[in-house]
Amino acid sequence: MSKPLKVALLGCGVVGSQVIKLMEEQADDLAARIGAPLELAGVAVRKPGRKREVSFDPALLTTDAEGLVTRDDVDIVIEVIGGIEPARSLILAAMASGKSVVTANKALLAEDGATIHAGGGDLYYEASVAGAIPLLRPLRESLAGDRVKRVLGIVNGTTNYILDKMDSTGASFNDALEEAQALGYAEADPTADVEGFDAAAKAAILAGLAFHSRVTAADVHREGITEITATDVASAKAMGYVIKLLAICARSDDGRSIGVRVHPAMIPRTHPLAGVREAYNAVFVEAESAGQLMFYGKGAGGAPTASAVLGDLVAVARNRLARTRGPEESVYASLAVHPMGETVTRCHVSLDVADKPGVLAQVATLFAEHDVSIQTVRQEGHGDDAQLVIVTHRATDAALSATMEGLRRLDIVRAIASVMRVEGDD
Amino acid sequence: MSKPLKVALLGCGVVGSQVIKLMEEQADDLAARIGAPLELAGVAVRKPGRKREVSFDPALLTTDAEGLVTRDDVDIVIEVIGGIEPARSLILAAMASGKSVVTANKALLAEDGATIHAGGGDLYYEASVAGAIPLLRPLRESLAGDRVKRVLGIVNGTTNYILDKMDSTGASFNDALEEAQALGYAEADPTADVEGFDAAAKAAILAGLAFHSRVTAADVHREGITEITATDVASAKAMGYVIKLLAICARSDDGRSIGVRVHPAMIPRTHPLAGVREAYNAVFVEAESAGQLMFYGKGAGGAPTASAVLGDLVAVARNRLARTRGPEESVYASLAVHPMGETVTRCHVSLDVADKPGVLAQVATLFAEHDVSIQTVRQEGHGDDAQLVIVTHRATDAALSATMEGLRRLDIVRAIASVMRVEGDD
Repeated sequence: MSKPLKVALLGCGVVGSQVIKLMEEQADDLAARIGAPLELAGVAVRKPGRKREVSFDPALLTTDAEGLVTRDDVDIVIEVIGGIEPARSLILAAMASGKSVVTANKALLAEDGATIHAGGGDLYYEASVAGAIPLLRPLRESLAGDRVKRVLGIVNGTTNYILDKMDSTGASFNDALEEAQALGYAEADPTADVEGFDAAAKAAILAGLAFHSRVTAADVHREGITEITATDVASAKAMGYVIKLLAICARSDDGRSIGVRVHPAMIPRTHPLAGVREAYNAVFVEAESAGQLMFYGKGAGGAPTASAVLGDLVAVARNRLARTRGPEESVYASLAVHPMGETVTRCHVSLDVADKPGVLAQVATLFAEHDVSIQTVRQEGHGDDAQLVIVTHRATDAALSATMEGLRRLDIVRAIASVMRVEGDD
Repeated sequence: MSKPLKVALLGCGVVGSQVIKLMEEQADDLAARIGAPLELAGVAVRKPGRKREVSFDPALLTTDAEGLVTRDDVDIVIEVIGGIEPARSLILAAMASGKSVVTANKALLAEDGATIHAGGGDLYYEASVAGAIPLLRPLRESLAGDRVKRVLGIVNGTTNYILDKMDSTGASFNDALEEAQALGYAEADPTADVEGFDAAAKAAILAGLAFHSRVTAADVHREGITEITATDVASAKAMGYVIKLLAICARSDDGRSIGVRVHPAMIPRTHPLAGVREAYNAVFVEAESAGQLMFYGKGAGGAPTASAVLGDLVAVARNRLARTRGPEESVYASLAVHPMGETVTRCHVSLDVADKPGVLAQVATLFAEHDVSIQTVRQEGHGDDAQLVIVTHRATDAALSATMEGLRRLDIVRAIASVMRVEGDD
């Protein structure tokens, strides 16, 4: 057995506490798996006086994170403070002084992964996407001999919890959000989750790995779920669909560019993602040779995230003993991210219309003018309640948007009651 | 870019052909991901004159596999011939002369993995279990910082296809098997699949990785599906269950031993594994911190298996350039495999009984004598058709077996119509 590897921990919140607890509880197993024991060298926090969920030698606490990550005896730095700064500077300082780094920081990786990777140290970040679900390692390594065509999944547990409640109980968005907050699934300020920022950061990381290209959060088309109404959910249900917030990364048909987007979409209730309940995550990966793969599990929470962090900790520790490092950033393909307008999707539209002859003809003509082909159309209600429910074939998002603009200008269309993309039944 | 890495291929059947095809089609991507181009150095086959599914320079063909794997210029050996010998000798010879090895050989790994690992070369074998589904790498690496409690899954596509057909069409085992054979899902001699040998080999490999212990196919309790009748399937269906062939590797409650078994079992139709149709595979992994994870995808076939082989090929190639190797065999925990009798399961039993007062009392007494607690009991039919359908609580397999023996000796029990373990609803 080699001499101990010393681990510095940045942050001691829900995940950090769990990391310390597991490092201690599983010390013998970890040592056997690595070939050397791990030793906690220090824990950098902002408020040393705060009560923690785990007890450890208080002498390990420090507010000098920079000093800790550059300390000569430290081998590995685990960053679980999140956010851009000071996380970025600390990771770079750690790498500059030869440390290996494990991070769960999706925001940083999605905003400025290039800088972090350029730091040159061994870098693992499985916990940054989909918590405990092994997803980045399979993309970085298992599928390294295949061509990924599409990654499609539910990567935010909070929004899935809210949408699942709306679907199963008929609750409004606000009521479901309140319940999620009461249960600790949503934060007091839920913006990052419900507006899709969290999912967009994850989509950027997934797209970068899947397509060997550099993708940042700014490249991701993002729509949240705050405008989904109980009526949207109910009418999706009536048609055999369920609404999910999806992260979708896909190569264009010609393979020359990629689309990366996060938005609510209707998927058939028979689709495996439709069965993903509560705060679970699930991601489909479609590759040329492997076909369709699905990964499912807990996407957040202290213990699941700590499991991913510790898996990475074992990996960097093994690498360190073998004087090697894991796969470097792979961005050789340099595929461009195309604008949302070029993305091809299907669309479900409900229109409140005047109930008189010729309405369908006018609407259908408008769709045809924009080259959007209609798959099904259903007329519902009569008189003032007349509705047209239309599902299109695949068309570019630009053509679909132009069609919606046109519909808004038609006299016979009283209102566009809802517009929702449809995924998962091609 | 480094100089080419030379790859020797052993076997050129369905998987081997696909490997050659993909190595050529994706040559540029593979080179970029590895940092060096790959070059096919030779293909060892038994019958060089045979027609192949892929075209390549016939000068690469050789019948001298031993000569090929020890050739000085060869860096990496891919073994896709399967079976114990000559695969074992060839892998050992390759390792002895310093080659890295990628294999898809579950039978060999499950029978004599210790010898192969002792060969000392870099060894990857993702394709040996569940085809394209990244499962071994997540167990070996992603979950290296967690404690796996249970692995439970469908790891044989052929039997899942047969059972799925029986469930969806009411077909008999033989009719479903014939259909599977006609479609190429089952071989002319289906023994390895339908008797559970294939699944047992995979279970041994999974258990070894999950529990850091040495497990061989001989340690696995194995029951096939040949005795499952259309009636079994129908009555499971009537109760809201579906019958699947499961591979289950689980730590005992005290954590000191493991149980490894392959047998048909009833699972609730609401369980995610119940929705695994046709020849797909899916595996649940339950770990202390990560919670429940599921991996789903194509478990067999040329392209999916080749995807896994190529992922491993990229890994060993990267390792070779970095002068390192992947994780070594991890068997430090040395947990013993306990006999099936100590395994704790639930059980569903249908009894043909005499329709007279006191029958239930006698049967219930017998269960109680063996310490097997009954969860539900239902009486069906009358007169000569009277049946008792019993579902037990958890009990050891030994107690359940003794109970069945006792039932056979009871006068009032005309026959035990079916006995099936129940999984997935605890």
